[in-house]
Amino acid sequence: MKMKSNMITQAVSGVVSAAAGLILGAGCATAQPSGNPLPSWNDGPAKQAIVDFVKTTTTKGSPKFVPPAERIATFDQDGTLWVEHPAYSQLMYCLDRVPAVVAAKPELKEVEPFKTVMSGDREAIAKLTLPELEKIAVVTLTGMTAEQFQAEVKQWLAKAKDPRWKRPYTQLTYQPMQEVLRYLRANSYKTYIVTGGGQDFVRVYSEQTYSIPPEQVVGTALGTTYGYDKEGKPILTKEPKLLLNDDNAGKPEGIHLMIGRRPHAAFGNSTGDQQMLEYTKAGDGARLAMLVFHDDAKREYAYGPAQGLPDTKVGTFPQALYDKAQKEG
Amino acid sequence: MKMKSNMITQAVSGVVSAAAGLILGAGCATAQPSGNPLPSWNDGPAKQAIVDFVKTTTTKGSPKFVPPAERIATFDQDGTLWVEHPAYSQLMYCLDRVPAVVAAKPELKEVEPFKTVMSGDREAIAKLTLPELEKIAVVTLTGMTAEQFQAEVKQWLAKAKDPRWKRPYTQLTYQPMQEVLRYLRANSYKTYIVTGGGQDFVRVYSEQTYSIPPEQVVGTALGTTYGYDKEGKPILTKEPKLLLNDDNAGKPEGIHLMIGRRPHAAFGNSTGDQQMLEYTKAGDGARLAMLVFHDDAKREYAYGPAQGLPDTKVGTFPQALYDKAQKEG
Repeated sequence: MKMKSNMITQAVSGVVSAAAGLILGAGCATAQPSGNPLPSWNDGPAKQAIVDFVKTTTTKGSPKFVPPAERIATFDQDGTLWVEHPAYSQLMYCLDRVPAVVAAKPELKEVEPFKTVMSGDREAIAKLTLPELEKIAVVTLTGMTAEQFQAEVKQWLAKAKDPRWKRPYTQLTYQPMQEVLRYLRANSYKTYIVTGGGQDFVRVYSEQTYSIPPEQVVGTALGTTYGYDKEGKPILTKEPKLLLNDDNAGKPEGIHLMIGRRPHAAFGNSTGDQQMLEYTKAGDGARLAMLVFHDDAKREYAYGPAQGLPDTKVGTFPQALYDKAQKEG
Repeated sequence: MKMKSNMITQAVSGVVSAAAGLILGAGCATAQPSGNPLPSWNDGPAKQAIVDFVKTTTTKGSPKFVPPAERIATFDQDGTLWVEHPAYSQLMYCLDRVPAVVAAKPELKEVEPFKTVMSGDREAIAKLTLPELEKIAVVTLTGMTAEQFQAEVKQWLAKAKDPRWKRPYTQLTYQPMQEVLRYLRANSYKTYIVTGGGQDFVRVYSEQTYSIPPEQVVGTALGTTYGYDKEGKPILTKEPKLLLNDDNAGKPEGIHLMIGRRPHAAFGNSTGDQQMLEYTKAGDGARLAMLVFHDDAKREYAYGPAQGLPDTKVGTFPQALYDKAQKEG
């Protein structure tokens, strides 16, 4: 989009002051900010595009008025609402869970990739391959009941801290994007997270962190199996069966499955969000599709490879996407 | 449940006056009825259980108070919110679509089961087997874009009429259950449909018929594939790939996938709802689980086979379920 480079420096300005943004976020989810609805955004075309979009879709009599029931806005999470570098927080969770899994299943202690994770050798861990990480995901994300998993994630979030910022992961959200969430909600938009991350994982903290309830989180979803525990109590057990791979083309497919309406606004930051943004823009009337581009290495991280920034496996923003965004406004 | 037989005669009293209920339903979705919130219910233990449940979960300071964000109520559709006899309305849709499909694909004309459907021989059509009905479902529910499907269903609903009642299917809803939906919503409950029927099908009319928006409809779901049409416009094509079989154990699994919270109240009418009701009741605090039992052949249909009523393939309510409900209150 044309205003992307403006949006960038604004959208990544939230890390250092993110805690303040979060506290506000939890308390003022429905408050209509008087005067400036996006205080941490610089004046410029990105901010103006959001304000214009909200005005044109919520002013009665506007030719592009959208009835409140149809006001759906979707947000990618990793790299759009919170920090995704140097690694996805959910991956940190999976790695941190390995000792507990190995304690319960000692036979895994000498088996790769668990042996490497247990060694604590950071360099070796950073080199784990995707199939190895998938093995770790399966043992740390499945096999327990849905409620046990929720309790484990909650416990981890209360203790774990990002190594660079020394803060809980749920405080590493982007204040400008928290402002967009609140601004849209204050104008009767229903805000959804549409993430490649695990749906069950994000649902544990979405309400406290973003004022987004679990039922408005669409993510990569594994199946559960209904059954009964020893006392005959109904339980849902998490299974290693992929129901929805909510990334790339999976994002619009997930939106159709879980929401059933096309969003009027969508926000992302990488190739994984491209189809969601295309799908959003292809609807009738006013549609807003925005990309966050990370170019502030001091207050956050800078990565592309667009515009000569360092390449990355996490949240890739290639030059082609940059050019497409420029071209399509 | 103990009050089931009371609930029965009340819950099925809505067919004849359903149109009035519907008109009210569309206009008064959030209105708090003063005085009697369930006017078409007879006074008795079933009505009392609903009123007590709402009071105890919404009165501040009550030991069983439920915060508004957690107020989730789920409703089966076929046989709980609208008539399911003599056949599911969606099956009627699929059969009615066959001529259009055959016109587009003339090679199907001489192939079974399409030949039988095209013959118009009602007796032969009624004898179609499940695999044959599945073949009909595949060609009438998949292959088109999500938007084309919505348009086709909308068009059918506007014209099709139930042969016995000579009314559009969306008017054959149970007024007492419409009142429960409104009463719960007036008390900040989010009402969901959790149906074995097709999610995409029910979403077309749920808002107008029940004041339940598409994103609050959980149903049997087929996958879609994201792609582009000839002009390069993004489209979602409906595929014959089952993502969620939202019946029996699939109902609590679907609730976990699509809502992510355990309901506080659930309503059903057959064995297909048993697991949803068990799962709901297994939660902490106040939980309401109710079954509608159909025993009024005059104003609707009477079927069991519980309590000596005729057996049925559509919405079976066996004696064992009746006894379990009696035993567990």
